[in-house]
Amino acid sequence: MKACRIAILGATGAVGRTMLQVLEEQTDWEIGEVRLLASPRSAGQTLLFKGQPLTLEAVTETSFEGMDVVLGAVENELAKRWAPWIVKAGAVFVDNSSAFRLDPGVPLVIPQINAEDIFKHQGIIANPNCATIIALMAVAPIYRLSRITRMIVSTYQAVSGAGAAGLAELKRQIAQLEAGQAVSAEAFPVQIAYNLIPQIGGFDEQGYSAEERKLQDEGRKILHDPALKISCTCVRVPVLRCHSESITLETERAVNLEEARKAIAEAEGVRLNEQPYPTPLACTDQNQVEVGRLRRDCTHEKGIALWCCGDQLRKGAATNAVEIVRTWWQKQAAH
Amino acid sequence: MKACRIAILGATGAVGRTMLQVLEEQTDWEIGEVRLLASPRSAGQTLLFKGQPLTLEAVTETSFEGMDVVLGAVENELAKRWAPWIVKAGAVFVDNSSAFRLDPGVPLVIPQINAEDIFKHQGIIANPNCATIIALMAVAPIYRLSRITRMIVSTYQAVSGAGAAGLAELKRQIAQLEAGQAVSAEAFPVQIAYNLIPQIGGFDEQGYSAEERKLQDEGRKILHDPALKISCTCVRVPVLRCHSESITLETERAVNLEEARKAIAEAEGVRLNEQPYPTPLACTDQNQVEVGRLRRDCTHEKGIALWCCGDQLRKGAATNAVEIVRTWWQKQAAH
Repeated sequence: MKACRIAILGATGAVGRTMLQVLEEQTDWEIGEVRLLASPRSAGQTLLFKGQPLTLEAVTETSFEGMDVVLGAVENELAKRWAPWIVKAGAVFVDNSSAFRLDPGVPLVIPQINAEDIFKHQGIIANPNCATIIALMAVAPIYRLSRITRMIVSTYQAVSGAGAAGLAELKRQIAQLEAGQAVSAEAFPVQIAYNLIPQIGGFDEQGYSAEERKLQDEGRKILHDPALKISCTCVRVPVLRCHSESITLETERAVNLEEARKAIAEAEGVRLNEQPYPTPLACTDQNQVEVGRLRRDCTHEKGIALWCCGDQLRKGAATNAVEIVRTWWQKQAAH
Repeated sequence: MKACRIAILGATGAVGRTMLQVLEEQTDWEIGEVRLLASPRSAGQTLLFKGQPLTLEAVTETSFEGMDVVLGAVENELAKRWAPWIVKAGAVFVDNSSAFRLDPGVPLVIPQINAEDIFKHQGIIANPNCATIIALMAVAPIYRLSRITRMIVSTYQAVSGAGAAGLAELKRQIAQLEAGQAVSAEAFPVQIAYNLIPQIGGFDEQGYSAEERKLQDEGRKILHDPALKISCTCVRVPVLRCHSESITLETERAVNLEEARKAIAEAEGVRLNEQPYPTPLACTDQNQVEVGRLRRDCTHEKGIALWCCGDQLRKGAATNAVEIVRTWWQKQAAH
């Protein structure tokens, strides 16, 4: 198999660095040149890849030439700014921003759920929202047993969802409090240490936050089910990098718990953990999403309640993006 | 009005100390002798009440004589141990443990919701579970507009729910981590700093934890609605003393948001906070429960979603207990 040449756009951020780490861990396909692209401010710095220093380059319109894939780990505006140049250079843009996710011409993919959509791409493949990936990884095995008609989700989202600045802010606030100093809030609207913030993104007219809408909008697209109903409450919690979600779902036909357990236990990328349950700390820095607290919803005959945890930087972002690339590249190579 | 003589059983714990503080803040009724009862280990120590030192006494079978009310802030076993002696001494036992809550002869009361039940007591009045009080304070104004048929609740519960030991454990773990030391877990099954624990109390055969069952069992009793259905996921979060809850409810008739807002804004003990929303840190050490993020559940025509926060030690425990006493005492005095 040919080696895949990959650029990371936004290599210095929390997601970009995790992408580099996940690429380093790949064993069953060959990665060729890795190019690290960032803002001019970071240019010239180095990051280690397989023990070798790679120099960060300032991104320009010609940065993508000679690449097979560009992994995007930048904000929407920058993703939109560079996408045409990536496509023009003939590389596939696997983008972690939300800029293209709902674009009908752009596949939105969790490889364990809708890998087939990858091959419909026209140059851009979108990586879903982190809370969406983790929730769908947990419920997709049940969905394959019976269509899910409704989901009520409350999230417990780590500060890494706000990037390196979010991680730094929680750590800094804790240190400030330990030192008896005043706490400053920059990455989040108010103090996150010892607190919760029930807002991720702006609110729409109906009172839902942008993050809360993503779960329904992206969930419908990934599951090819435009009638799927998801109501979500997204909450930032003082946890470093693993999202947790409390999910209550209703299925079209009643699914018994043993069927559901078997389906989850057999699904790729998911681990059933009822010994005793997943916690975000224990799931940190692992690729698998863990599912536990599986039980009948005592208020609905076709209801199931569960709890899941997944590393936001890995399966919620970098791991899923790299799995998209691997799936695409291995299929390419087979032809 | 006669002055009410009050003993606090378990005065050195987190709830006991908050009871003393809430008693100190009472202005519209007179509190006479205050007696502080604790284990022999704490006897002889003093706590300040209105600037005067009160000496802790070791509890004995005669400790309750001459008291009008005993506020209980001890575990179930001790509440059961002392209840007969309290009743025998002619005092009313307002108990914060779960020992008597579901006893048909014991009223379970949130004064803003079912004050009338207070007067059916036979010597014992139970103070509800903290997460239950906070959830019901938030939804009762809506319930008064239309019966609520189903509630899906995910909680974000502070460490103070595990008492002074819970508070100390989070602070100690943070200090240990800041100092680069290994973290020990005693009050909770695993590390709570930078983590979440989706277990409060033991699990039953259906997979629900004891805390999760309380919300339905106690909610039914308080609202006098044995058909009320509540499914709950209770999660411990690294927050000091304020519980938060994400609640999705279904009403019998469709309640519009403006009606619901008006009802919440006018309800006693509750504050509507949509500027922008309640956080546990901002609600700490206040008696009111705050409700925000009020919106139509986008998955159900008669559904409403909301977010609420309440201080676990105040309205979740001490404030509610003192309000029970005040309601009872003021009515007594009126006759």
